[in-house]
Amino acid sequence: MQGLIMSHAISDAPLTLNVELGERSYPIHIGAGLLGDPRWLEPYLVGRQVMIVTNDTVAPRYLERVKQGLSGDREVREVVLPDGEHTKTLDSVSLIWDALLAAGFNRRCTLVALGGGVIGDMAGFAAACYQRGVAFIQVPTTLLSQVDSSVGGKTGVNHPRGKNMIGAFWQPRAVLIDTDTLRTLPERELSAGLAEVIKYGLIRDAGFLAWLEAHMEELRALDGAMLREAIHRSCALKAAVVAEDETEQGVRALLNLGHTFGHAIEAHQGYGAWLHGEAVGAGMLMAAELSHRLGWLDDDDVVRVSAILEAAGLPRVAPGNMTRDDFLEVMRLDKKNLDSRLRLILLRALGDACVHDATPKAELDALLETFPRG
Amino acid sequence: MQGLIMSHAISDAPLTLNVELGERSYPIHIGAGLLGDPRWLEPYLVGRQVMIVTNDTVAPRYLERVKQGLSGDREVREVVLPDGEHTKTLDSVSLIWDALLAAGFNRRCTLVALGGGVIGDMAGFAAACYQRGVAFIQVPTTLLSQVDSSVGGKTGVNHPRGKNMIGAFWQPRAVLIDTDTLRTLPERELSAGLAEVIKYGLIRDAGFLAWLEAHMEELRALDGAMLREAIHRSCALKAAVVAEDETEQGVRALLNLGHTFGHAIEAHQGYGAWLHGEAVGAGMLMAAELSHRLGWLDDDDVVRVSAILEAAGLPRVAPGNMTRDDFLEVMRLDKKNLDSRLRLILLRALGDACVHDATPKAELDALLETFPRG
Repeated sequence: MQGLIMSHAISDAPLTLNVELGERSYPIHIGAGLLGDPRWLEPYLVGRQVMIVTNDTVAPRYLERVKQGLSGDREVREVVLPDGEHTKTLDSVSLIWDALLAAGFNRRCTLVALGGGVIGDMAGFAAACYQRGVAFIQVPTTLLSQVDSSVGGKTGVNHPRGKNMIGAFWQPRAVLIDTDTLRTLPERELSAGLAEVIKYGLIRDAGFLAWLEAHMEELRALDGAMLREAIHRSCALKAAVVAEDETEQGVRALLNLGHTFGHAIEAHQGYGAWLHGEAVGAGMLMAAELSHRLGWLDDDDVVRVSAILEAAGLPRVAPGNMTRDDFLEVMRLDKKNLDSRLRLILLRALGDACVHDATPKAELDALLETFPRG
Repeated sequence: MQGLIMSHAISDAPLTLNVELGERSYPIHIGAGLLGDPRWLEPYLVGRQVMIVTNDTVAPRYLERVKQGLSGDREVREVVLPDGEHTKTLDSVSLIWDALLAAGFNRRCTLVALGGGVIGDMAGFAAACYQRGVAFIQVPTTLLSQVDSSVGGKTGVNHPRGKNMIGAFWQPRAVLIDTDTLRTLPERELSAGLAEVIKYGLIRDAGFLAWLEAHMEELRALDGAMLREAIHRSCALKAAVVAEDETEQGVRALLNLGHTFGHAIEAHQGYGAWLHGEAVGAGMLMAAELSHRLGWLDDDDVVRVSAILEAAGLPRVAPGNMTRDDFLEVMRLDKKNLDSRLRLILLRALGDACVHDATPKAELDALLETFPRG
């Protein structure tokens, strides 16, 4: 695989990856300069009517460029929502439905999600439920959404009682990842995206983890070829997992490494206070420490996890105001739990995650009590 | 087929029909005394947690009986919504989600829809989108929902700008049709249900249409064997169509005979003023008259359609306050339209419906101007 990676890096051409899901299969195109080039967007549109869903941070930067990538005879409308995780609500999705109906859009239309994971999740959910399902295309503009939420068909919104509690599985017709959009991404959000990239190495690919340890500096300096490579490798790992298990009955749960703890942090702090990737970063270190307590990881493994998170600019502590019980209260509601049993994703080794539903309460309590707080 | 119908009618045992949809296949059980008998509900429940969704008309009559059909170790909750089409909104579905989350329901739970089509559509949509999809079971208590909305997996809610505009395709695990529930159904609602029964004969089965002409009086007198037969035959016809075309790309559109005109009536009069089946009844006569104008039906055919609607106790006129333009305004938004082209379901003969997207404007205008008003 190392040879393959290097050969890709020589050319500037976009890479294409196919997510294999039978009749719901779709391509992911990754490269520089995709926005504004009709070769990448036009082939995937259904019908004449196009609704671009974006937010007020992304719209001034990229909305016009996306429109340039559409042919002149399209009926193009847009919904510009406020930026931020706090907007990921049913009310925001209702605004999208209102706009579609006000414009008289029928079921042969396409929604284009232009923005980060929040926009992608909401536009995807809006598409899933508008007239019982219309086409949509993901144009993710943050590293996190490029490597995570744009692959796999999970869409939805938060509820005051829990993250992503309302939603649907709905696959896009295509995902267009323009690495140029990362040039305007705040450094903190780049780090948050790197947390998910590191996650793929930790759960499934020790070789990729080593590659990331070697190239973290270039990634943070926005080296185009390295970014394209890391995104391609991440999407390929996620696509393989999703193709095995589209509706999360089995192996797909591994993608939630760090997420059970991370969701608890996000929910307790209020959505948006911690970036999702930051919470997942701390959560992955918690999962690694718990795996160490169970005798699966050795000291050096945990040090490597901690070091790569630090190199990516991620937090390695939990919030100072969060008790053991604060964690447990949110974790009880986690979607992975079956009946009333807590299920966690842990590491048998670096590059080898597993689903674990028999964690001794004493070990979990000890972790939640002793894990460093910021 | 006549022989098959007669042989069924001899026994009192429930009839079972399988809707063939691959891994989403499910049975429909039809008979007397199904509610309260654990043999019919228990086998289809997923997980321990059960949420019964019903309304304040049905709950006093049947909620306790359904609970008697559940084993003692289940965690059973209920949501009782107000009765009526005006409650078929996203806000009502949100109440179901709130109740599920407040009770800590995880994704291994089952929603039971106990009521008419409004309850079935909302509970189904709530199930489709709760934690991206949980199990649900339909227990329809009106004739309309027994022969129509409980088969096919359409779920959703209305929007101020259009009926069923927000929703999803989501299949139940089973449908339990207890014909005893029709004994408490108002006569007007029984007639509305008969409109959909007649529809199946008109679109696909001239033999069934003749059977209905012969037995309409017994059906309106709630003869149990005749009801079971009519429901079974209707569900079988719908199931065959749905199995051919689950997501309504082709033949399933035929099930919308009378619905384009009918939806226009409902939307213009305000949802609930006309019952859905009443609007469909008038809409079918409009479709028959338009088919006559196109030279497909002869005078006698139209008279037969009018006569069976009258025998079923259905209206055969459009609302007195509704102009041609009132019809056209709503019809323009119909989900069947592709791009901006109006599509109608018409009759080439009694028992043979077709999709038609080239109706001359003059013929449509003439129908909408001359069709009798009430």
